Amino acid sequence: MLKVEHIGIAVKDFSQSISLYEKLLNTICYKKELVASEKVNTAFFIQGETKIELLESTEADGVIAKFIEKRGEGLHHIAFETNDIEAEMQRLKNEGFILLNETPKRGADNKLVCFVHPKNTDGVLIELCQSIV
Amino acid sequence: MLKVEHIGIAVKDFSQSISLYEKLLNTICYKKELVASEKVNTAFFIQGETKIELLESTEADGVIAKFIEKRGEGLHHIAFETNDIEAEMQRLKNEGFILLNETPKRGADNKLVCFVHPKNTDGVLIELCQSIV
Repeated sequence: MLKVEHIGIAVKDFSQSISLYEKLLNTICYKKELVASEKVNTAFFIQGETKIELLESTEADGVIAKFIEKRGEGLHHIAFETNDIEAEMQRLKNEGFILLNETPKRGADNKLVCFVHPKNTDGVLIELCQSIV
Repeated sequence: MLKVEHIGIAVKDFSQSISLYEKLLNTICYKKELVASEKVNTAFFIQGETKIELLESTEADGVIAKFIEKRGEGLHHIAFETNDIEAEMQRLKNEGFILLNETPKRGADNKLVCFVHPKNTDGVLIELCQSIV
């Protein structure tokens, strides 16, 4: 793992939260992207080498809608960057972690991603990600 | 705000979680520190320019124990580094955010810290921090 690539935050009201985080972080939202396969709208802010990613569900049955229903808005996941996602997935499997997808899938921000089950990480949803070059 | 200084994770079993995060992050815990005033044990891991901080309550009535009782283990807060915490606190107050302490207080890792109330940040507990030099 190279760095914290981004921190994902589940929100209900996308435009209101974008405005809020622009004030909080004192920086503009530099990109918005719909990830249809995951039923989420995403909005990004830069803080040093890390991004803050707001996540809004586009569907009532989306994973972010379900998360908010259960736990409320707030911190959703941490994404760590790797330069070899398949090797990192294999390393974590060997260490006994449970991967939520067996092969890397396409995520927001031109990335290949894989999630690690939070039941083996003290309740923290972890994402591995690698830029597609 | 300069960068994500650390991400705090609330855990129940400190030594078990340290071992788990050493495997997950593929790096050693480089520091442990008791913050008696906050009733927490802290353990740190480096990931790029950001630290992962595990937080274990030392008392049944500590803030981390109460958090886990209510929400379970998991992501607890994001800390952003600033080089002028008082100016940043004033800026956030002017923007309408609610600060949980009116003056900077001493935190872990040789820092002055201030927390921002999560009710105005979409449920995310935000910490500002500045290194004491």
